[in-house]
Parts: sequence; C-alpha cells; structure tokens
Amino acid sequence: MPVFEVSEYQERIAKTKQRMQQQGIDVLFISQPANMNYLTGYDAWSFYVHQCVLVALEAEEPVWVGRGMDGNCARLTTFLSDENIVEWPDHYVHSAEHHPAETMVEVIKARGWDKKRIGVEMDQFYFTHRTFLELEKGLPNATFVDGDTLVNRVRLVKSEREIEYMKRAGKIAERVMDAAVENIKVGARECDAAAAIAYAEYSGTEEFGGDYPAIVPLMMAGEATKTPHLTWTDKRYVADEAVLLELAGVYRRYHCPIARTMFLGKEPPQIMRDTAEVVIDGLQKTLEFVRPGVTAEQIEAQWRKAIAHSTIVKESRLGYSIGVNYPPDWGEQTISLRPGDKTELEPNMTLHLIPGIWYDDVGFEIDASIRVTENGYEHLFEYPLDIVLK
Amino acid sequence: MPVFEVSEYQERIAKTKQRMQQQGIDVLFISQPANMNYLTGYDAWSFYVHQCVLVALEAEEPVWVGRGMDGNCARLTTFLSDENIVEWPDHYVHSAEHHPAETMVEVIKARGWDKKRIGVEMDQFYFTHRTFLELEKGLPNATFVDGDTLVNRVRLVKSEREIEYMKRAGKIAERVMDAAVENIKVGARECDAAAAIAYAEYSGTEEFGGDYPAIVPLMMAGEATKTPHLTWTDKRYVADEAVLLELAGVYRRYHCPIARTMFLGKEPPQIMRDTAEVVIDGLQKTLEFVRPGVTAEQIEAQWRKAIAHSTIVKESRLGYSIGVNYPPDWGEQTISLRPGDKTELEPNMTLHLIPGIWYDDVGFEIDASIRVTENGYEHLFEYPLDIVLK
Repeated sequence: MPVFEVSEYQERIAKTKQRMQQQGIDVLFISQPANMNYLTGYDAWSFYVHQCVLVALEAEEPVWVGRGMDGNCARLTTFLSDENIVEWPDHYVHSAEHHPAETMVEVIKARGWDKKRIGVEMDQFYFTHRTFLELEKGLPNATFVDGDTLVNRVRLVKSEREIEYMKRAGKIAERVMDAAVENIKVGARECDAAAAIAYAEYSGTEEFGGDYPAIVPLMMAGEATKTPHLTWTDKRYVADEAVLLELAGVYRRYHCPIARTMFLGKEPPQIMRDTAEVVIDGLQKTLEFVRPGVTAEQIEAQWRKAIAHSTIVKESRLGYSIGVNYPPDWGEQTISLRPGDKTELEPNMTLHLIPGIWYDDVGFEIDASIRVTENGYEHLFEYPLDIVLK
Repeated sequence: MPVFEVSEYQERIAKTKQRMQQQGIDVLFISQPANMNYLTGYDAWSFYVHQCVLVALEAEEPVWVGRGMDGNCARLTTFLSDENIVEWPDHYVHSAEHHPAETMVEVIKARGWDKKRIGVEMDQFYFTHRTFLELEKGLPNATFVDGDTLVNRVRLVKSEREIEYMKRAGKIAERVMDAAVENIKVGARECDAAAAIAYAEYSGTEEFGGDYPAIVPLMMAGEATKTPHLTWTDKRYVADEAVLLELAGVYRRYHCPIARTMFLGKEPPQIMRDTAEVVIDGLQKTLEFVRPGVTAEQIEAQWRKAIAHSTIVKESRLGYSIGVNYPPDWGEQTISLRPGDKTELEPNMTLHLIPGIWYDDVGFEIDASIRVTENGYEHLFEYPLDIVLK
C-alpha cells in the first residue's frame, strides 16, 4: 500500500491540477518516475520500459499505464482503483513493430481525452522522442504542450510527513558517511569501501531501513579528485591521497545527500587546506543567509561574496532542491542556486548546497542538506564541517 | 584510462560505421550511456544531464560532448584526444533559457556536419523529445533518421576480453546469490538482506572488485511474489514465505544476472513445487537447444513446447541479450526470446533466460545466464537449478 495517506496524494493531485489549469493543460502525461511516485505512490524498478501516469482535469483519479507484468506492482504500491491500472501487452517491449505508447493512446481515446490539450514532460529522461512521435501519430486531434517540471515544482514544498522522511534520510546519511570514513583507509580496496557504504545505505538504522539512492556512491581518489561523478575501482588507497565522497541516505525514496573530503594522512597539502578554509567559511556565511523570502540567486550571490577575497572560482551552480527521486538523479530539477534563478524560498523546501571544487591540482567537496524553516534553516544531518583526516 | 585496448574501441567504431553506411547515416548522435561507454570507454555517473558521443563516417575519432565539470571524466576514462572532448557551460543545466543540445549543435556545425544525415537514438531513454527539438531547430539543413539500437546491435557479439569480463561478472553473481541465501532468513529485515547483497555486488571477489548493477536487488517476499520489479522494505521475513530474487554480478559495467526463488521453510506449497518442476525442466530442455544458427524465436518455441503439458502460460518474453550497461536496464534491447524475433544466434552472444512466473497464487523465478559457444552454450555462473529451501 502507498506510503502516505490517500488524502496526501489527493492534495498533491489537486495542486498539480491547479498548475495544469494555469498552464492550459487538460491532461498531463507523466513519465518521470519520481513524479509518478509522488502522485500515486507507484514504486517499482519498472522504469526501464515505457510507463506513465495520466492526470486529467476532469478525472478524479490518475490512470497508471505500464507493462502487464508490472500491473501488480501498481496494485501493491498505489491507491489507484483497478479501472485506473491499465497494462500493455508484453510483446510491445523493445519491439520493432509495436510501442507501449499505443496502449497509452488507446487509454486517452477511450476516456475521450484525444481532442484535449495534453502536457508532456518534454525534457525528462524516460520520455523519449519516439514516445512523442507515437502520441502525435495516434492522437492527431490533440494539442501537445510542454508540461516539463510541472509536477517537479509541486514537489518543492514538502509536507510534515515528507520532512520527517527527509530527516530519517538524514540520520541514514550520517551512518553512511561514518561507514565511508571507517572503511576508507590506506591499503583497503575502493570497491570494499563502496560495499560498506552501500551496506549502510540499504540497511539504514535499527528503527527504520534504508532505500537505494538515485546515484550510487561517487568516490574519487588521488588523480580522480579533479572531477566529480566517478565511481570506484579495485585500486587500493595509498597514503597522502585525497578522497572526495558524494553519498546519500535515503528513506522511502526521499534523499538526503552528504559530501565530505577525506585526506589519508595528517598533513594535507597547503592548497587543499587553503581551499577548505575558504569553502567552509563561504558555506557557513551562505547558510546564515538562508530564510524564506530570499531567492535562489541571492543565496548564490552571498556565496560568491563570501569567497570573493580568494582565488576560488566556482562556475557551476552552488546547489539545488532535493526530495523524492529515482535514478539517475536525486536533484529535483527545479531550484538551482545560481544567477538568474529567482525562485523565492519557502518554509519546508529542502536544498542541497554543495560547493564542490574540481581543479587539476586540488579537488574539494563539502555540503549541507537543509530544510528551510519559518525563520531560517535547519540541517537534515549533523556532521562536522571540515576535512576528514585519517 | 579506458578498460579495453584502444584497438578494440577502434574495431567497435569500424563496425558501427559499417552499420551507419548500411542505414544511410553520416553522423550518429549517441546518448545511451552503455553505447557511449562501448565506443569510447566513457564511464561516469554523469548521465543525469544531457551528453552525447558523435560518430561521423568522415571522422576517425568520435567526439564526446558533456557538461563542463565532466570533461575530466572523459579525459580520465576515454582514449579520446582533447580536441574531441567538448564541454557545455554549467548554466545550461536544468535551465529554462538554455539547453545542452545548443553546444551539441555548435559542434556539429563547426565540423561541417550540419547538412548530413544524422541518426538519433529515437527510443533510448536519455534522448528526450526536447533534445530532438533543439537539434531540429539548430540544424535546419540536416536530415534526421532513426539510429535506435544501432550500436546496441554491434554490442551483441562479444570479444574474448568482453567474455572474460562477463565470466568475472558470473563469479561475482555466485557470491551475490550466496550472500542473499545466507542473509535472508526468518526474523531478518529485508533491508539488511539487501545491504548484504549490495555488499557482495560492489566488493566482488578477492581477485577483482565488483561494480554497481544497472538494476538494484529485486527481492519480492510473501504477497509481493505475485509481481517482479519490487525492491525491499524493512519488514522481517516470516516462516513459510517465498522470496523471489533477481540479482546480478557486475564487472566493469558487464552484467551477469542471477535469479532464484527461496522458500523459508521445509515444505513449499504443492503449487510452487509443481511450478518449479515444470519451469526447471522446461529451462533445461530449452538450454539443450541453444547453439549458433538457431533463432531467438526458435528457442522460445522450444520452451513453449517443453511446458505445453502443464497449465503454465508465460506471456512475457523468455529472455534477452546482456552485456555492458547502465541504469535503468541491464538488457541490451536487441534480442528478445519470443515469437517474431528472427535473430540468429552467433558464438559469443550472451543471453539471460529468465522464465519468471508471477501469478496471484504463486511466483517463481529461476534463470540461466549463458554464452553461446561454437557448438552450444556455456553457463556464465554455476548455481544449483532448484528452489532454495531454508
């Protein structure tokens, strides 16, 4: 059964319909797995084939359309009634002759929505160009409009129950970083440290279990610290090597990222210490500025002001909003802390601030995952804001 | 540096160009992460933003285009020369004003490919409808054609080195299943068993480390055995409950799936025993039939013949080809063992046969991951073909 009360899904659907009305969308075709989960509870690793949730202004309940063998996943994890769970036949999977969108077209026609304005998530992975072509071919009287990130924006402000889930994810994140620090040591293989990290992610705490993160452990050592987004090898850690860690705790698909930099020795190079000092001080000053009413770009400007006295230049965004998600990304693809993003912060938005620096001669990552409160912010996890020496 | 010899990538590129010529494609725009890896070695968890590899008939080397901060990932993991690593600016990420495809358009123009026939992977996730619209807008003189699964088909027949990697993945798969069987027991939490499975996946063996699978552990217990594709909860296993396991061993992105059914007791229900007997016998008879020259649909027909005496009906495909991959799927999206697939088997193709049964009253999964040999087949992992009683 779905993890939230049915009334909470109904509120989310109502907010979605409100935005649909504002954007002139009658039917929203949702293929992003986190958006599908958010509106119905659907939770299965079935997003490697085409599936969707349809929200129509005129229909009370959304419709799930997916592969036949996943229909029972929908029955087990959503609140949807059986008439709103529609299955496409298995021979449509990876077929040259058929496409799952054919069934989606049939559903839209059968419900009389084929002359409506249909919103599609144009730039979400899991919505391919081919799916669009099939919809266009099968629904010649429909008008297609962009509904990209519409549901993502509804997700921005979390409910009390969602915040509780984020905090549980934060508790797991602390344990995940503990597992990393304990297992990353001179002589250990990177893959064994990764294994211990995954163990902590999935196992969670004694009170509540963990879930899989939308991004596997990113853990760059030695030369690889000049870049983010690499995973592990089976190399052994050597003395006086830096390790960048970008990890997460997850509770029921809600993510709390956690990032730190380790140095396997007592004397990090001067350039790393200098970088750490500037970045940590800059992050603290930026956090002090966080409160409802300030905009995403104002936060980033504060960060730039705080590090202006140094030689550090960070071209990439300082952070982004977080919440429920599926691979390949735990970011919500809405708020980006950077110039031009004028989104005003509201209470119960949750953000990941990650001032990562990846130069050829030094890499450094540290972060804060926070909730915006009525007057400021609170941390979702507690972990010392410093280089981890070992 | 890339994990294969540069000459192996060059052979793969040559085969890709051959198919491009056959299909009338001058430039292939590749966004599927496994295809990017296969042709260049590129290996990073950066596929949550838009990136591509361009293969042009007239250019010796492919071009990688990705996010600025991932340029060093390309420098560290591919054989590409610096002029063929092109970065898009960070403010294009999840932006309402800009799209990463703008840089891809610029690269195509700068190299004089903007009047060519450009193949795109129309139905691959990671190639969104919006990306297509941006290409179409930016390259009005190009002709776009479907290049979907073109590289996937090149991947079908593995090299000796790739087979060695698949066998290593098979060794890891055996350990992964051992970890599952050891940790799934009455009273244990599902999340703790999942943690032990992930540990085995990432850690690998003492001789070689593991890698992350394209699909997290799928582990359905009790009522959930009527469906595939669910992950874990923090419930505790209870006596006389069945557990379906769909797991994998992975070595350097090469996958060997492994699936078994456990029963937490000594006396599985009669219906499960009957199902197991039919399915295992059917799988064995099907495997005996596997050899070069037979077609995918002939193999499936053999399976149907072998179970025809029973009441079992399997509507979904019996299996598919496997190899290098990234989330969300370890299947190659080429061969499907089902009616209509006339692909002839060749030596060094690798297949996953998984006759999974998910009825409301019984679920049962068992599998074989195999390599097609000169005369028949060999198993990629060794594990008893039976229900695991515990």
